[in-house]
Amino acid sequence: MIGNFNYFTPTKLFFGKGVIKDLPGVVGQYGKNVLLTYGGGSIKKMGLYDEVYKLLEGFNIIELSGIEPNPKYDPSVLTGAKLCKENAVDVILAVGGGSVLDCSKAISACAKYDGDGWDLISGKVKTRAALPVIDVITLAATGSEYDAGCVISNTAINDKRGYMDDHLYPVASFLDPEYTFSVSKWQTACGTADAINHVLEQFFATPASLFNDGIMIAALRSLMTNVKIALKDPADYAARSELMYVCSWGCNGILSNGAGYSGWPMHSIEHALSAYFDITHGAGLAIITPRWMREILSEKTVERFVTLGVSLFGFDRSLSDSEIADKAIDAFYKFFEEIGIPMSLGELGVKEDKIGEMVDHILENDSTDEPWMYAPIGREALVRILKASM
Amino acid sequence: MIGNFNYFTPTKLFFGKGVIKDLPGVVGQYGKNVLLTYGGGSIKKMGLYDEVYKLLEGFNIIELSGIEPNPKYDPSVLTGAKLCKENAVDVILAVGGGSVLDCSKAISACAKYDGDGWDLISGKVKTRAALPVIDVITLAATGSEYDAGCVISNTAINDKRGYMDDHLYPVASFLDPEYTFSVSKWQTACGTADAINHVLEQFFATPASLFNDGIMIAALRSLMTNVKIALKDPADYAARSELMYVCSWGCNGILSNGAGYSGWPMHSIEHALSAYFDITHGAGLAIITPRWMREILSEKTVERFVTLGVSLFGFDRSLSDSEIADKAIDAFYKFFEEIGIPMSLGELGVKEDKIGEMVDHILENDSTDEPWMYAPIGREALVRILKASM
Repeated sequence: MIGNFNYFTPTKLFFGKGVIKDLPGVVGQYGKNVLLTYGGGSIKKMGLYDEVYKLLEGFNIIELSGIEPNPKYDPSVLTGAKLCKENAVDVILAVGGGSVLDCSKAISACAKYDGDGWDLISGKVKTRAALPVIDVITLAATGSEYDAGCVISNTAINDKRGYMDDHLYPVASFLDPEYTFSVSKWQTACGTADAINHVLEQFFATPASLFNDGIMIAALRSLMTNVKIALKDPADYAARSELMYVCSWGCNGILSNGAGYSGWPMHSIEHALSAYFDITHGAGLAIITPRWMREILSEKTVERFVTLGVSLFGFDRSLSDSEIADKAIDAFYKFFEEIGIPMSLGELGVKEDKIGEMVDHILENDSTDEPWMYAPIGREALVRILKASM
Repeated sequence: MIGNFNYFTPTKLFFGKGVIKDLPGVVGQYGKNVLLTYGGGSIKKMGLYDEVYKLLEGFNIIELSGIEPNPKYDPSVLTGAKLCKENAVDVILAVGGGSVLDCSKAISACAKYDGDGWDLISGKVKTRAALPVIDVITLAATGSEYDAGCVISNTAINDKRGYMDDHLYPVASFLDPEYTFSVSKWQTACGTADAINHVLEQFFATPASLFNDGIMIAALRSLMTNVKIALKDPADYAARSELMYVCSWGCNGILSNGAGYSGWPMHSIEHALSAYFDITHGAGLAIITPRWMREILSEKTVERFVTLGVSLFGFDRSLSDSEIADKAIDAFYKFFEEIGIPMSLGELGVKEDKIGEMVDHILENDSTDEPWMYAPIGREALVRILKASM
């Protein structure tokens, strides 16, 4: 059954080789004063920075560079918002991966707000306006290019928040798979692991329908098949294009319209991990995934594992449900290993003696144990998952 | 490989039981003068007409009723546009099925145009503006509630046109599956056949990716499974909700972003049939489908049939490709028969002696034989398909 839902994704997608040629026309619809945001300079190495300047000749470009992974409220969001206000910026152009875009979304709202922008990000104050954001994506992973959310860290108060609001949809996203050819094997694997986890967070919920299950399994199959091709041949356009497209569906709800809401428990755990140890988000998720699966496997949830096992992995339906579930969990573990993710948090520098503190953090900030959740997990379960992941 | 594409569907979906409560708030965003459009009065029988009036108390409602299946430029579109201009209508509210909505979309553009509206519909003049359209859907079929197209007949010049423009996206669509409980068995079957054909028109094209194939097969599986449930129990909410949701994905491109464009040849044939004999669109499509499949089956296209056979129908992959293709075509024929569609055009009143004329019409209006098409079909093939369908 498709339960009640509202759905709305107004972002215009410009997808494919060479689509950046349309950038000046689209940016120009919003004005001449552009805040260009980017990260550490990889867009310079790949020539994209120069290309953007060439295309936007005649525009007034203000820059915010050096946006970090796990983007920070202070300094990045605050500086960007200040630049927008001081320069009467009309439109923000984010060039980079999900972090650059997430930061730019937060800037877009803070630039239109007179108080402390953290009020908006933390949900204390309702967002009433935002500057238009356009993005050129260089990494397939987060799906931020096609959703209304961003994740922002506030190190001063040790907080990391998912901030969602309809004002945060990019007005246009430019997705050229060739820009992802130079993405490293590590980032390719971690980006895909992130996208796979987005699907799984939605798949492990009260199921909506044959249709939702089908599109989620199609997404998983596509991601798991194509990442292996892209790792072997980073310039394989077919594989990169499919990864880029499927990743964009990750977080706007389209995969799970009408289904129950799981609460995204694996993301809750990973947010604590990356808050304490600044690890790569996708790697953290990949390591947690099979351990979380093992923990929540129950009479209630086994049906989800069986559907994955049979439809995604092609296991024999005549095996027992619990055998299929076991094999499915093992298959995910093996898959992440195969794409080069070390399957222990210790290898990423996470220290076991922080588990207690991280679990406190999860339960305080994300409440993974709400009774309405599909598979609530409390303190002991969280400790078991993290210990098993070490 | 995902080929280049632009994609944009800004319609807000309000889906589920009771969502109509949000109607006044949404309509009110656009103004107080509302053109209410509907068809032959089934919305009165089901109580929806009264409910809309109760909800829109305080609004100024102007009515256009009696919109026909295969909606006509004259009188419906012309009358509606005139009403909009005379009454300074702010927003059009379409309550009914795809025909009512299609007609309303055409009205929305013609109301903002000073010349002969057929200029817009025929593509002679570019559409520059349209009134906002909101719809409440009572029949799952066309997908018009989530796309930027409409099909309008101009009987004066024996023309029927598909009219597509970004201005034609409804601003909001209200989809309450309960409104489809009273849809007859015949309309339920024909509406679903229409939606199935929308998927197949996109599936039989240069394939884009594992992902696109997966979501299209998920759509087909969902439609074919749920229509049988809804035919047995018209008030089965789960089945009706899934049919309604999947139908809405039919025509906005989301199923085939990045794939080749087939030219929608079965729709070209059916448009001629319903232009000459005013048959039910979905029934015409169902009858043509297996005959068209048989005609275009070739060394090039067999891969599509094999994918359908194996992934949708679960046929044994060790059979030969052509055996799988045969079985898949037979399976579609049998399926349409099972849902109650008479599988011959003669039974719908189509006369064999008009085949030549209809084929002329198809080749003049829709050119099914362009070399860029996935499976071009010329005069002789069209005649064979129609003769086999008699």
